[in-house]
Amino acid sequence: MKSNISALQSARASYKPKLPKILMGPVAKVGLKLGKATKSIADQNEIQKLFTKTYGQPEVSFHAGKNPASLKKPIKVALVLSGGQAPGGHNVVAGLYDGLKKLNPKNILQGYLGGPSGLLENKYIEITDKLLKEYRNTGGFDIIGSGRTKLESREQFEAVARNLKNAGITALVVVGGDDSNTNAAVLAEYFKIQNTPIRVIGCPKTIDGDLKNDQIEISFGFDTATKVYAELAGNVGRDCLSAKKYWHFIKVMGRSASHIALEVALQVHPNVTLISEEVADQQWTLDQITEHVAKVVAERAAQKKNYGVVIIPEGLLEFIPEMKKLISELNDLLAHNPAFERMESAHDKISFVQQRLGADSKKAFQSLPPSIQIQLLADRDPHGNVQVAKIETEKLLIEAVELKLKAWKQQSMYHGKFSGQGHYFGYEGRCAAPSNFDSDYCYSLGFNASYLVASGLTGYLSSVRDLLKPADKWQAGGVPLTMMMNLERRHGKDKPVILKALVELKGKPFKAFAAQRKKWAIEDDYQSPGPIQFWGPVEVANAAPETLKLERGKK
Amino acid sequence: MKSNISALQSARASYKPKLPKILMGPVAKVGLKLGKATKSIADQNEIQKLFTKTYGQPEVSFHAGKNPASLKKPIKVALVLSGGQAPGGHNVVAGLYDGLKKLNPKNILQGYLGGPSGLLENKYIEITDKLLKEYRNTGGFDIIGSGRTKLESREQFEAVARNLKNAGITALVVVGGDDSNTNAAVLAEYFKIQNTPIRVIGCPKTIDGDLKNDQIEISFGFDTATKVYAELAGNVGRDCLSAKKYWHFIKVMGRSASHIALEVALQVHPNVTLISEEVADQQWTLDQITEHVAKVVAERAAQKKNYGVVIIPEGLLEFIPEMKKLISELNDLLAHNPAFERMESAHDKISFVQQRLGADSKKAFQSLPPSIQIQLLADRDPHGNVQVAKIETEKLLIEAVELKLKAWKQQSMYHGKFSGQGHYFGYEGRCAAPSNFDSDYCYSLGFNASYLVASGLTGYLSSVRDLLKPADKWQAGGVPLTMMMNLERRHGKDKPVILKALVELKGKPFKAFAAQRKKWAIEDDYQSPGPIQFWGPVEVANAAPETLKLERGKK
Repeated sequence: MKSNISALQSARASYKPKLPKILMGPVAKVGLKLGKATKSIADQNEIQKLFTKTYGQPEVSFHAGKNPASLKKPIKVALVLSGGQAPGGHNVVAGLYDGLKKLNPKNILQGYLGGPSGLLENKYIEITDKLLKEYRNTGGFDIIGSGRTKLESREQFEAVARNLKNAGITALVVVGGDDSNTNAAVLAEYFKIQNTPIRVIGCPKTIDGDLKNDQIEISFGFDTATKVYAELAGNVGRDCLSAKKYWHFIKVMGRSASHIALEVALQVHPNVTLISEEVADQQWTLDQITEHVAKVVAERAAQKKNYGVVIIPEGLLEFIPEMKKLISELNDLLAHNPAFERMESAHDKISFVQQRLGADSKKAFQSLPPSIQIQLLADRDPHGNVQVAKIETEKLLIEAVELKLKAWKQQSMYHGKFSGQGHYFGYEGRCAAPSNFDSDYCYSLGFNASYLVASGLTGYLSSVRDLLKPADKWQAGGVPLTMMMNLERRHGKDKPVILKALVELKGKPFKAFAAQRKKWAIEDDYQSPGPIQFWGPVEVANAAPETLKLERGKK
Repeated sequence: MKSNISALQSARASYKPKLPKILMGPVAKVGLKLGKATKSIADQNEIQKLFTKTYGQPEVSFHAGKNPASLKKPIKVALVLSGGQAPGGHNVVAGLYDGLKKLNPKNILQGYLGGPSGLLENKYIEITDKLLKEYRNTGGFDIIGSGRTKLESREQFEAVARNLKNAGITALVVVGGDDSNTNAAVLAEYFKIQNTPIRVIGCPKTIDGDLKNDQIEISFGFDTATKVYAELAGNVGRDCLSAKKYWHFIKVMGRSASHIALEVALQVHPNVTLISEEVADQQWTLDQITEHVAKVVAERAAQKKNYGVVIIPEGLLEFIPEMKKLISELNDLLAHNPAFERMESAHDKISFVQQRLGADSKKAFQSLPPSIQIQLLADRDPHGNVQVAKIETEKLLIEAVELKLKAWKQQSMYHGKFSGQGHYFGYEGRCAAPSNFDSDYCYSLGFNASYLVASGLTGYLSSVRDLLKPADKWQAGGVPLTMMMNLERRHGKDKPVILKALVELKGKPFKAFAAQRKKWAIEDDYQSPGPIQFWGPVEVANAAPETLKLERGKK
């Protein structure tokens, strides 16, 4: 063993992830059942035109039966990890590898390095037992690395096809979120059109939890990441009760959708949780959000509770109409603007911008504290866009709430003390050791992907369902990628993309939250879920996310 | 059960913390063994003069023998939790309660509310089985709350004596850090002089780990808090290896001493760990620290590793001589300065200060980024002092390193990419559910305190030793508080205080770190300890802190 294997990692190395029953038995007794032809979730005509070869494929599932796939000849499969890390990625690799070896011990798995760019640059390693040994049930994507290169252009597709054909690859497995799987769908279609005999199978990854739909119950990594954030937020709640002097404003990762914030709320019962989708739905201004939070602070202060916990979704700002407009104007104004780029002082930048923004956006910009104005103008991404994830929304809200309370104090509407502490929980959770739930789910997704490959399928997302049942009762199969697609306007063009699942305000998780939030606001109802447990009582060590329980549970 | 008891909390409620063997057996068979008379660790003559009644008491330990304490009459004991939270506080309460009830079921434990101020205001509740049930093995101090009021003046002592005498209290147990236990020692002496028959016993609490010495192996809470921070830092290390694009600068809590930073380093193997005590010893300037970090960044960049982890102790700035001087000048300059307090704009404040600082401090001030200058001038504590804990040292260093690298780039000395992410791990760990180590240790400390009380002792710190052995082999006893004291210059006066344990540069933990840091700097040797486990293999679930293993281990 290397010098840096912790006791936990060493003990977890021997954990045998669970599988759906059908995948545990002999290969020869696995039958593929085809469902009915499918349609895309929206824009059927347009999507069908764009995916002439792969549109409408049936859902598939594995059941006891005769193995339909030709497995006599060994195959070589390519694997790529795409986008942000999510706990359990290594178990997808392990499952895929073990599945392929079970199908035929001579099958080979090649891991392409550093994400999709590895496919373009033809950089890969062979996955072996020895290599995997160190990575089973561990967090991170470091076994082969990940990256954010997007495979979109024809030239890229040609390069990928060339490299994979040269390497004798039969199938490519893409582990990624909605965008990466959209690209996988386009690539699958491209290969079909070109008569390139390479299959493409996706696996649903993202801690953000926004790759889900009627067919996909949850994306992997969401469980572990939210459990880490909930552990910390629960500890902070406990700290509130003991110290009784801070308001903790906690921003949680999750680029657009607020699933993470909602899940943490359901686990921890903070005093306030902002849900971006509700903010957009209600067309709240920043001032209204501030007032919403400040009211809870004031109500609690009236009960001598000058402490609390606020959960803020990372993408909040972009869901506030006035801020969305401001950010969009800033992007147009500043992207690749050499005059602006030459400016060094924050003061110059701010006045440059203020002279050029429209009236509404100027007002919105001026409503922000100087520290946030500076953040909006600094740190732009390679496309010149504002990096919303880097804006310290938690501090912005602390400052805004503080000002509001000051005004209320002058009007004798508030008599408390307010001291804010900002937190951002993000990188701490993306590469955590996967929970038992994610360890099992990921291993099953990868294992199942090998069976989809062996079945000769392409343009499918690996699907493992009935996740609230014990693992041996999970259903294994595949969902056509086109089934999840719709058209979205991006950069002025309609693009076929997998529909991103935002928090549904009529969905059970949000409703469960909404039904309790008044109580949580005023009472000290903090729940402390504690650290992820790998051993111990089943209800502790094998718990599924609250969101999943509410969405798919019996009640 | 209440609605906010998590599955983990519910399962942990039934955990039975371990005890030293002697405390498990029948009360009548416990004998008190007295050691030799003791001396204070320094300034013996002065300390002896200040503690005429309690100086020189022997160390004591419990062994098989006859019970020396009169336990026929039931007693009433007062308990107070003092200062910042530390995981395991509730188990001290539980141990103390269970010990007292074992000694005599009619004994009563009264918890004074909100810290030492509860003693002054005579606010308390009786601790009962029913109340405790919800708190056993949980984090936080919320069972009776904590506070930072210092008991120092004669008037305060008189009020405490009056309240405790009126309540019929036999002994007061103070759970606190070095300062709180210093006050406990003074109070014990005061009671003796006044012939007030109230004993005072302390328990060594602080996540900072700086209340330790030859007699006290470790303070409680250190294990759990550092495990939480190491879990997160380990996850971030894993994230580095996967994403390969950020330098994470992580500030960890720990007011003065760098024990927490060092323990996290030993568990996680980050690329750079700053140790305040070394900075002070080497008389490093901020620029030298920056260069130290930037060099590692550059060396790694030369190996195409544009990522890494830096651990920064919270108190760092105060250990940099130039900054210490600056902060001290700012405190003198600005404390209760009405002209300054009236200023609203950051610009005015900064120029006010710059006109009045001495030449060295002015230079030091000007070397700081504007955001940090503003932090130094805002957020002053009630005494008018700079709140060093609130200064974002992690961001300061990111900015400073960035500037340094920019300069090196222009001189072609550096060719990498640098993108910093700041973190602060503090409040997330203070109230975490206690590890098995802390659960057992705290329960034993509290239980043992009840035996010290029953033995009629006063001015002692509860001591449980040989912590690396299985719990039943732990040694229970007491250490005279005066034994740990020395004189320190505070506010221009010599004060007797318990010696704060800083990181010893000649100690084994620092040496172990120093021996490996070159390797850790360049190689990707990150270790991921993972979340605290309460069940599972002993080496995972019952591990002691690395610092303790190195300090007290066999090798």
